Amino acid sequence: MTPRLIEVRANILKENDVLARQLRQRFKRAGVCVVSFVSSPGSGKTTFLEKLMGRMAARHRIAALVGDLATENDAARLRRACPQVRQITTGTACHLDAKMVAAALEGWVLEELDYLFIENVGNLVCPSSYDLGEQMRVVLLSATEGEDKPLKYPTIFNTADVAMITKMDLAVAAEFDLEAARRSILTVRPGMRIVEVSAKTGAGMAETVAMVEGLRVRAQAGC
Amino acid sequence: MTPRLIEVRANILKENDVLARQLRQRFKRAGVCVVSFVSSPGSGKTTFLEKLMGRMAARHRIAALVGDLATENDAARLRRACPQVRQITTGTACHLDAKMVAAALEGWVLEELDYLFIENVGNLVCPSSYDLGEQMRVVLLSATEGEDKPLKYPTIFNTADVAMITKMDLAVAAEFDLEAARRSILTVRPGMRIVEVSAKTGAGMAETVAMVEGLRVRAQAGC
Repeated sequence: MTPRLIEVRANILKENDVLARQLRQRFKRAGVCVVSFVSSPGSGKTTFLEKLMGRMAARHRIAALVGDLATENDAARLRRACPQVRQITTGTACHLDAKMVAAALEGWVLEELDYLFIENVGNLVCPSSYDLGEQMRVVLLSATEGEDKPLKYPTIFNTADVAMITKMDLAVAAEFDLEAARRSILTVRPGMRIVEVSAKTGAGMAETVAMVEGLRVRAQAGC
Repeated sequence: MTPRLIEVRANILKENDVLARQLRQRFKRAGVCVVSFVSSPGSGKTTFLEKLMGRMAARHRIAALVGDLATENDAARLRRACPQVRQITTGTACHLDAKMVAAALEGWVLEELDYLFIENVGNLVCPSSYDLGEQMRVVLLSATEGEDKPLKYPTIFNTADVAMITKMDLAVAAEFDLEAARRSILTVRPGMRIVEVSAKTGAGMAETVAMVEGLRVRAQAGC
Protein backbone atom coordinates (compact mmCIF):
# COMPACT_ATOMS: atom_id res chain seq x y z
CA MET A 1 0.00 0.00 0.00
CA THR A 2 1.54 3.30 -1.09
CA PRO A 3 0.96 6.56 0.76
CA ARG A 4 -0.55 7.96 -2.43
CA LEU A 5 -3.29 5.36 -2.50
CA ILE A 6 -4.04 5.98 1.15
CA GLU A 7 -4.36 9.68 0.43
CA VAL A 8 -6.67 9.16 -2.57
CA ARG A 9 -8.71 6.66 -0.60
CA ALA A 10 -9.03 9.07 2.34
CA ASN A 11 -10.46 11.71 -0.02
CA ILE A 12 -12.97 9.24 -1.43
CA LEU A 13 -14.05 8.21 2.06
CA LYS A 14 -14.42 11.87 3.03
CA GLU A 15 -16.54 12.51 -0.06
CA ASN A 16 -18.65 9.45 0.82
CA ASP A 17 -19.12 10.64 4.40
CA VAL A 18 -20.36 14.04 3.24
CA LEU A 19 -22.83 12.45 0.85
CA ALA A 20 -23.96 9.91 3.48
CA ARG A 21 -24.65 12.72 5.93
CA GLN A 22 -26.80 14.46 3.31
CA LEU A 23 -28.66 11.21 2.65
CA ARG A 24 -29.26 10.71 6.38
CA GLN A 25 -30.77 14.22 6.66
CA ARG A 26 -32.91 13.56 3.59
CA PHE A 27 -34.18 10.28 5.04
CA LYS A 28 -34.94 12.01 8.33
CA ARG A 29 -36.87 14.83 6.69
CA ALA A 30 -38.87 12.32 4.64
CA GLY A 31 -39.60 10.23 7.76
CA VAL A 32 -38.25 7.02 6.23
CA CYS A 33 -36.39 4.47 8.36
CA VAL A 34 -33.34 3.08 6.59
CA VAL A 35 -31.85 -0.23 7.65
CA SER A 36 -28.88 -1.81 5.85
CA PHE A 37 -27.77 -5.45 5.87
CA VAL A 38 -24.23 -6.71 5.36
CA SER A 39 -22.62 -10.16 5.53
CA SER A 40 -20.47 -12.73 3.71
CA PRO A 41 -21.79 -13.97 0.39
CA GLY A 42 -24.34 -16.69 1.08
CA SER A 43 -25.21 -15.80 4.69
CA GLY A 44 -28.85 -15.56 3.74
CA LYS A 45 -29.40 -11.79 3.47
CA THR A 46 -31.84 -12.00 0.56
CA THR A 47 -33.95 -14.86 1.93
CA PHE A 48 -34.08 -13.15 5.32
CA LEU A 49 -35.02 -9.81 3.78
CA GLU A 50 -37.68 -11.39 1.59
CA LYS A 51 -39.30 -12.91 4.69
CA LEU A 52 -38.94 -9.70 6.72
CA MET A 53 -40.50 -7.60 3.96
CA GLY A 54 -43.25 -10.18 3.51
CA ARG A 55 -44.17 -9.83 7.19
CA MET A 56 -44.05 -6.03 7.14
CA ALA A 57 -45.56 -5.23 3.72
CA ALA A 58 -49.21 -5.29 4.81
CA ARG A 59 -48.72 -2.66 7.53
CA HIS A 60 -45.96 -0.46 6.09
CA ARG A 61 -44.83 1.18 2.85
CA ILE A 62 -41.55 -0.50 2.02
CA ALA A 63 -38.85 -0.26 -0.65
CA ALA A 64 -35.50 -1.97 -1.04
CA LEU A 65 -32.17 -1.55 -2.79
CA VAL A 66 -29.95 -4.55 -3.32
CA GLY A 67 -26.29 -4.60 -4.32
CA ASP A 68 -24.38 -7.25 -6.25
CA LEU A 69 -21.43 -7.24 -8.63
CA ALA A 70 -23.56 -8.89 -11.29
CA THR A 71 -27.11 -10.25 -11.93
CA GLU A 72 -30.57 -8.94 -11.05
CA ASN A 73 -31.42 -12.18 -9.21
CA ASP A 74 -31.82 -10.66 -5.78
CA ALA A 75 -34.07 -7.82 -6.90
CA ALA A 76 -36.30 -10.37 -8.62
CA ARG A 77 -36.47 -12.40 -5.40
CA LEU A 78 -37.26 -9.39 -3.20
CA ARG A 79 -40.00 -8.24 -5.59
CA ARG A 80 -41.97 -11.32 -4.56
CA ALA A 81 -42.39 -9.60 -1.17
CA CYS A 82 -42.75 -6.00 -2.31
CA PRO A 83 -42.73 -4.42 -5.77
CA GLN A 84 -40.58 -1.36 -5.09
CA VAL A 85 -37.11 -2.90 -5.39
CA ARG A 86 -34.08 -1.78 -7.36
CA GLN A 87 -30.89 -3.69 -8.06
CA ILE A 88 -27.54 -1.89 -7.92
CA THR A 89 -24.91 -3.77 -9.91
CA THR A 90 -21.44 -2.64 -8.89
CA GLY A 91 -19.36 -4.34 -11.60
CA THR A 92 -16.09 -4.93 -9.77
CA ALA A 93 -16.72 -2.82 -6.65
CA CYS A 94 -16.82 -4.84 -3.43
CA HIS A 95 -19.30 -2.60 -1.60
CA LEU A 96 -22.07 -0.04 -2.02
CA ASP A 97 -21.35 3.62 -1.42
CA ALA A 98 -23.54 6.65 -0.69
CA LYS A 99 -23.34 7.84 -4.31
CA MET A 100 -24.74 4.54 -5.64
CA VAL A 101 -27.56 4.67 -3.08
CA ALA A 102 -28.41 8.28 -3.99
CA ALA A 103 -28.46 7.43 -7.70
CA ALA A 104 -30.65 4.36 -7.17
CA LEU A 105 -33.26 6.44 -5.29
CA GLU A 106 -33.83 8.67 -8.33
CA GLY A 107 -37.53 9.15 -9.00
CA TRP A 108 -38.73 7.57 -5.74
CA VAL A 109 -40.74 9.80 -3.41
CA LEU A 110 -39.16 9.07 -0.03
CA GLU A 111 -42.03 10.80 1.80
CA GLU A 112 -44.27 7.96 0.62
CA LEU A 113 -42.11 5.32 2.32
CA ASP A 114 -41.96 4.05 5.91
CA TYR A 115 -38.95 1.80 5.45
CA LEU A 116 -36.07 1.49 3.03
CA PHE A 117 -33.97 -1.67 3.28
CA ILE A 118 -30.52 -1.78 1.70
CA GLU A 119 -28.81 -5.11 1.07
CA ASN A 120 -25.08 -4.57 0.56
CA VAL A 121 -22.72 -6.63 -1.60
CA GLY A 122 -21.73 -9.88 0.17
CA ASN A 123 -18.42 -8.95 1.75
CA LEU A 124 -17.20 -8.84 5.36
CA VAL A 125 -14.42 -6.31 4.72
CA CYS A 126 -15.08 -3.50 2.25
CA PRO A 127 -18.60 -2.31 3.20
CA SER A 128 -17.41 -1.41 6.70
CA SER A 129 -15.74 1.80 5.45
CA TYR A 130 -18.78 3.19 3.64
CA ASP A 131 -21.55 4.99 5.48
CA LEU A 132 -24.76 4.75 3.43
CA GLY A 133 -26.78 7.19 5.52
CA GLU A 134 -28.68 4.33 7.17
CA GLN A 135 -30.14 4.59 10.69
CA MET A 136 -29.34 1.00 11.55
CA ARG A 137 -26.75 -1.38 10.14
CA VAL A 138 -27.29 -5.09 10.70
CA VAL A 139 -24.45 -7.58 10.22
CA LEU A 140 -25.51 -11.16 9.51
CA LEU A 141 -23.47 -14.23 10.40
CA SER A 142 -24.83 -17.64 9.40
CA ALA A 143 -24.63 -20.69 11.65
CA THR A 144 -22.71 -22.50 8.90
CA GLU A 145 -19.85 -19.97 8.73
CA GLY A 146 -18.00 -20.65 11.94
CA GLU A 147 -18.00 -19.04 15.34
CA ASP A 148 -14.77 -17.02 15.01
CA LYS A 149 -15.75 -14.80 12.08
CA PRO A 150 -16.37 -11.73 14.30
CA LEU A 151 -12.80 -12.03 15.64
CA LYS A 152 -11.42 -12.31 12.10
CA TYR A 153 -13.49 -9.46 10.64
CA PRO A 154 -13.80 -7.13 13.63
CA THR A 155 -14.34 -3.86 11.74
CA ILE A 156 -17.60 -4.89 10.12
CA PHE A 157 -18.99 -5.94 13.51
CA ASN A 158 -17.76 -2.70 15.03
CA THR A 159 -19.51 -0.55 12.45
CA ALA A 160 -22.82 -2.43 12.79
CA ASP A 161 -25.57 -1.80 15.36
CA VAL A 162 -27.05 -5.28 15.56
CA ALA A 163 -25.69 -8.78 14.86
CA MET A 164 -28.02 -11.39 13.46
CA ILE A 165 -27.19 -15.09 13.49
CA THR A 166 -28.97 -16.62 10.49
CA LYS A 167 -29.71 -20.18 9.33
CA MET A 168 -30.26 -21.32 12.92
CA ASP A 169 -32.18 -24.29 11.44
CA LEU A 170 -28.79 -25.63 10.24
CA ALA A 171 -27.04 -25.07 13.59
CA VAL A 172 -27.20 -28.71 14.72
CA ALA A 173 -26.15 -30.16 11.34
CA ALA A 174 -23.26 -27.69 11.17
CA GLU A 175 -22.27 -28.37 14.81
CA PHE A 176 -22.53 -24.64 15.42
CA ASP A 177 -21.49 -23.48 18.88
CA LEU A 178 -23.89 -20.61 19.59
CA GLU A 179 -22.26 -19.62 22.86
CA ALA A 180 -18.82 -19.40 21.21
CA ALA A 181 -20.27 -17.24 18.42
CA ARG A 182 -21.94 -14.94 20.96
CA ARG A 183 -18.65 -14.66 22.86
CA SER A 184 -16.82 -13.73 19.62
CA ILE A 185 -19.35 -11.01 18.82
CA LEU A 186 -19.28 -9.61 22.34
CA THR A 187 -15.48 -9.67 22.46
CA VAL A 188 -15.35 -7.45 19.40
CA ARG A 189 -18.32 -5.31 20.39
CA PRO A 190 -19.32 -5.57 24.06
CA GLY A 191 -23.05 -5.16 24.64
CA MET A 192 -24.03 -5.65 21.00
CA ARG A 193 -27.61 -6.80 20.46
CA ILE A 194 -27.67 -10.31 19.00
CA VAL A 195 -30.76 -11.80 17.34
CA GLU A 196 -30.93 -15.47 16.31
CA VAL A 197 -33.09 -16.17 13.29
CA SER A 198 -34.13 -18.80 10.80
CA ALA A 199 -35.85 -17.46 7.71
CA LYS A 200 -36.85 -21.06 6.99
CA THR A 201 -38.62 -21.89 10.26
CA GLY A 202 -39.55 -18.30 11.09
CA ALA A 203 -37.70 -18.39 14.42
CA GLY A 204 -36.62 -14.91 15.52
CA MET A 205 -38.55 -13.18 12.75
CA ALA A 206 -41.18 -11.66 15.06
CA GLU A 207 -38.41 -10.27 17.27
CA THR A 208 -36.75 -8.77 14.20
CA VAL A 209 -39.96 -7.12 13.00
CA ALA A 210 -40.46 -5.67 16.50
CA MET A 211 -36.88 -4.38 16.53
CA VAL A 212 -37.24 -2.67 13.14
CA GLU A 213 -40.64 -1.23 14.04
CA GLY A 214 -39.24 -0.07 17.38
CA LEU A 215 -36.64 1.93 15.52
CA ARG A 216 -39.41 3.94 13.89
CA VAL A 217 -41.50 4.28 17.03
CA ARG A 218 -38.50 5.55 19.01
CA ALA A 219 -37.90 8.25 16.46
CA GLN A 220 -41.58 9.28 16.67
CA ALA A 221 -42.20 11.48 13.67
CA GLY A 222 -39.95 9.59 11.28
CA CYS A 223 -36.56 8.16 12.17
CA MET B 1 -14.79 6.06 -8.35
CA THR B 2 -12.50 8.85 -9.60
CA PRO B 3 -10.15 8.41 -12.55
CA ARG B 4 -7.26 9.17 -10.22
CA LEU B 5 -8.02 6.16 -8.03
CA ILE B 6 -8.25 3.95 -11.10
CA GLU B 7 -4.84 5.19 -12.22
CA VAL B 8 -3.22 4.64 -8.83
CA ARG B 9 -4.84 1.22 -8.56
CA ALA B 10 -3.60 0.25 -12.05
CA ASN B 11 -0.04 1.06 -10.97
CA ILE B 12 -0.40 -1.04 -7.84
CA LEU B 13 -1.77 -3.97 -9.83
CA LYS B 14 1.10 -3.63 -12.32
CA GLU B 15 3.59 -3.63 -9.45
CA ASN B 16 1.87 -6.73 -8.04
CA ASP B 17 1.97 -8.52 -11.40
CA VAL B 18 5.71 -7.92 -11.72
CA LEU B 19 6.36 -9.25 -8.23
CA ALA B 20 4.03 -12.23 -8.79
CA ARG B 21 5.93 -13.14 -11.96
CA GLN B 22 9.18 -13.08 -10.00
CA LEU B 23 7.64 -15.26 -7.30
CA ARG B 24 6.37 -17.73 -9.92
CA GLN B 25 9.90 -18.05 -11.39
CA ARG B 26 11.34 -18.48 -7.92
CA PHE B 27 8.83 -21.24 -7.10
CA LYS B 28 9.61 -22.95 -10.40
CA ARG B 29 13.38 -22.86 -9.85
CA ALA B 30 12.91 -24.24 -6.34
CA GLY B 31 10.60 -26.99 -7.62
CA VAL B 32 7.81 -26.12 -5.22
CA CYS B 33 4.15 -26.43 -6.27
CA VAL B 34 2.07 -23.50 -5.08
CA VAL B 35 -1.70 -23.79 -4.79
CA SER B 36 -3.87 -20.97 -3.45
CA PHE B 37 -7.40 -21.18 -2.04
CA VAL B 38 -9.98 -18.42 -2.09
CA SER B 39 -13.65 -18.25 -1.03
CA SER B 40 -16.23 -16.38 1.05
CA PRO B 41 -15.58 -16.21 4.78
CA GLY B 42 -16.77 -19.46 6.32
CA SER B 43 -16.73 -21.68 3.22
CA GLY B 44 -14.47 -24.11 5.00
CA LYS B 45 -11.04 -23.27 3.55
CA THR B 46 -9.13 -23.90 6.76
CA THR B 47 -10.87 -27.16 7.68
CA PHE B 48 -10.45 -28.42 4.13
CA LEU B 49 -6.78 -27.41 4.04
CA GLU B 50 -6.10 -28.99 7.42
CA LYS B 51 -7.51 -32.29 6.13
CA LEU B 52 -5.67 -32.03 2.80
CA MET B 53 -2.36 -31.30 4.49
CA GLY B 54 -2.98 -34.11 6.97
CA ARG B 55 -3.38 -36.56 4.07
CA MET B 56 -0.31 -35.29 2.22
CA ALA B 57 2.12 -34.59 5.08
CA ALA B 58 3.52 -38.13 5.34
CA ARG B 59 4.58 -38.26 1.70
CA HIS B 60 5.48 -34.64 0.94
CA ARG B 61 7.27 -31.64 2.42
CA ILE B 62 4.56 -29.04 2.91
CA ALA B 63 4.26 -25.47 4.14
CA ALA B 64 1.35 -23.05 4.26
CA LEU B 65 0.61 -19.34 4.47
CA VAL B 66 -2.77 -18.18 5.69
CA GLY B 67 -4.29 -14.71 5.42
CA ASP B 68 -6.79 -13.01 7.70
CA LEU B 69 -7.49 -9.44 8.72
CA ALA B 70 -6.98 -10.39 12.36
CA THR B 71 -6.16 -13.36 14.65
CA GLU B 72 -3.67 -16.22 14.34
CA ASN B 73 -6.48 -18.81 14.69
CA ASP B 74 -6.10 -20.36 11.26
CA ALA B 75 -2.32 -20.78 11.47
CA ALA B 76 -2.79 -22.53 14.81
CA ARG B 77 -5.35 -24.88 13.24
CA LEU B 78 -3.20 -25.68 10.21
CA ARG B 79 -0.18 -26.39 12.42
CA ARG B 80 -2.05 -29.44 13.72
CA ALA B 81 -1.49 -30.94 10.24
CA CYS B 82 1.97 -29.57 9.50
CA PRO B 83 4.32 -27.38 11.55
CA GLN B 84 5.55 -25.03 8.83
CA VAL B 85 2.71 -22.52 8.76
CA ARG B 86 2.74 -18.75 8.90
CA GLN B 87 -0.15 -16.35 9.42
CA ILE B 88 -0.34 -13.15 7.40
CA THR B 89 -2.55 -10.60 9.14
CA THR B 90 -3.64 -7.93 6.69
CA GLY B 91 -5.19 -5.40 9.09
CA THR B 92 -7.84 -3.81 6.89
CA ALA B 93 -6.78 -5.23 3.50
CA CYS B 94 -9.38 -7.48 1.88
CA HIS B 95 -6.90 -9.73 0.05
CA LEU B 96 -3.33 -11.02 0.02
CA ASP B 97 -0.88 -9.60 -2.51
CA ALA B 98 2.44 -10.83 -3.90
CA LYS B 99 4.43 -8.54 -1.60
CA MET B 100 2.82 -10.02 1.52
CA VAL B 101 3.52 -13.54 0.24
CA ALA B 102 7.17 -12.71 -0.53
CA ALA B 103 7.63 -11.17 2.93
CA ALA B 104 6.04 -14.16 4.67
CA LEU B 105 8.41 -16.58 2.93
CA GLU B 106 11.46 -14.86 4.48
CA GLY B 107 13.87 -17.42 5.91
CA TRP B 108 12.17 -20.48 4.42
CA VAL B 109 14.26 -22.60 2.03
CA LEU B 110 11.85 -23.18 -0.84
CA GLU B 111 14.07 -25.92 -2.30
CA GLU B 112 13.22 -28.03 0.74
CA LEU B 113 9.50 -27.89 -0.01
CA ASP B 114 7.28 -29.90 -2.36
CA TYR B 115 4.09 -27.90 -1.82
CA LEU B 116 3.20 -24.46 -0.57
CA PHE B 117 -0.49 -23.82 0.12
CA ILE B 118 -1.77 -20.27 0.42
CA GLU B 119 -5.13 -19.56 2.04
CA ASN B 120 -6.35 -16.11 1.03
CA VAL B 121 -8.52 -13.75 3.09
CA GLY B 122 -12.19 -14.80 2.95
CA ASN B 123 -13.54 -12.59 0.17
CA LEU B 124 -15.17 -13.32 -3.20
CA VAL B 125 -14.23 -9.99 -4.78
CA CYS B 126 -10.87 -8.44 -3.95
CA PRO B 127 -8.47 -11.44 -4.22
CA SER B 128 -9.39 -11.90 -7.89
CA SER B 129 -7.22 -8.94 -8.95
CA TYR B 130 -4.05 -10.12 -7.23
CA ASP B 131 -1.78 -12.75 -8.75
CA LEU B 132 0.22 -14.42 -5.96
CA GLY B 133 2.56 -16.36 -8.25
CA GLU B 134 0.64 -19.59 -7.59
CA GLN B 135 0.46 -22.42 -10.17
CA MET B 136 -3.12 -23.27 -9.34
CA ARG B 137 -5.89 -21.21 -7.82
CA VAL B 138 -8.83 -23.04 -6.29
CA VAL B 139 -12.10 -21.25 -5.56
CA LEU B 140 -14.29 -22.85 -2.89
CA LEU B 141 -18.05 -22.54 -2.73
CA SER B 142 -19.87 -24.20 0.16
CA ALA B 143 -23.14 -26.07 -0.23
CA THR B 144 -24.71 -23.71 2.31
CA GLU B 145 -23.98 -20.53 0.34
CA GLY B 146 -26.45 -20.81 -2.51
CA GLU B 147 -26.17 -21.96 -6.08
CA ASP B 148 -26.00 -18.56 -7.78
CA LYS B 149 -22.80 -17.24 -6.20
CA PRO B 150 -20.68 -17.89 -9.34
CA LEU B 151 -23.09 -15.72 -11.37
CA LYS B 152 -22.90 -12.97 -8.78
CA TYR B 153 -19.11 -13.07 -8.35
CA PRO B 154 -17.97 -14.08 -11.84
CA THR B 155 -14.46 -12.60 -11.73
CA ILE B 156 -13.21 -14.78 -8.90
CA PHE B 157 -14.44 -17.90 -10.73
CA ASN B 158 -12.84 -16.66 -13.94
CA THR B 159 -9.44 -16.17 -12.34
CA ALA B 160 -9.48 -19.61 -10.68
CA ASP B 161 -8.42 -22.93 -12.24
CA VAL B 162 -10.59 -25.29 -10.23
CA ALA B 163 -13.90 -24.90 -8.36
CA MET B 164 -14.46 -26.91 -5.24
CA ILE B 165 -17.89 -27.36 -3.69
CA THR B 166 -17.36 -27.82 0.04
CA LYS B 167 -19.55 -28.93 2.98
CA MET B 168 -21.31 -31.48 0.79
CA ASP B 169 -22.35 -33.23 4.03
CA LEU B 170 -24.71 -30.28 4.63
CA ALA B 171 -26.15 -30.32 1.09
CA VAL B 172 -29.39 -32.11 1.99
CA ALA B 173 -30.05 -30.04 5.13
CA ALA B 174 -29.39 -26.84 3.18
CA GLU B 175 -31.55 -28.04 0.24
CA PHE B 176 -28.55 -27.40 -2.00
CA ASP B 177 -29.18 -27.91 -5.72
CA LEU B 178 -25.87 -29.35 -6.96
CA GLU B 179 -26.87 -29.31 -10.62
CA ALA B 180 -27.88 -25.63 -10.45
CA ALA B 181 -24.54 -24.80 -8.79
CA ARG B 182 -22.63 -26.71 -11.47
CA ARG B 183 -24.59 -24.86 -14.17
CA SER B 184 -23.74 -21.50 -12.54
CA ILE B 185 -20.03 -22.34 -12.46
CA LEU B 186 -19.99 -23.58 -16.05
CA THR B 187 -21.94 -20.55 -17.28
CA VAL B 188 -19.24 -18.28 -15.90
CA ARG B 189 -16.35 -20.54 -16.85
CA PRO B 190 -17.20 -23.24 -19.41
CA GLY B 191 -15.22 -26.46 -18.94
CA MET B 192 -14.05 -25.60 -15.43
CA ARG B 193 -13.07 -28.62 -13.30
CA ILE B 194 -15.45 -29.01 -10.37
CA VAL B 195 -14.66 -31.16 -7.34
CA GLU B 196 -17.25 -31.90 -4.65
CA VAL B 197 -15.83 -32.42 -1.18
CA SER B 198 -16.71 -32.85 2.45
CA ALA B 199 -13.82 -32.33 4.84
CA LYS B 200 -16.06 -33.88 7.50
CA THR B 201 -16.89 -37.19 5.80
CA GLY B 202 -13.75 -37.29 3.65
CA ALA B 203 -15.76 -37.43 0.40
CA GLY B 204 -13.78 -36.04 -2.53
CA MET B 205 -10.56 -35.71 -0.53
CA ALA B 206 -8.74 -38.54 -2.36
CA GLU B 207 -9.64 -36.93 -5.69
CA THR B 208 -8.29 -33.61 -4.44
CA VAL B 209 -5.01 -35.14 -3.27
CA ALA B 210 -4.65 -36.84 -6.69
CA MET B 211 -5.35 -33.53 -8.45
CA VAL B 212 -2.74 -31.64 -6.42
CA GLU B 213 -0.18 -34.43 -6.81
CA GLY B 214 -0.94 -34.58 -10.54
CA LEU B 215 -0.03 -30.92 -10.81
CA ARG B 216 3.46 -31.75 -9.61
CA VAL B 217 3.83 -34.90 -11.71
CA ARG B 218 2.79 -33.02 -14.84
CA ALA B 219 5.47 -30.46 -14.24
CA GLN B 220 8.04 -33.27 -13.82
CA ALA B 221 11.08 -31.62 -12.29
CA GLY B 222 9.18 -29.26 -10.07
CA CYS B 223 6.10 -27.32 -11.11
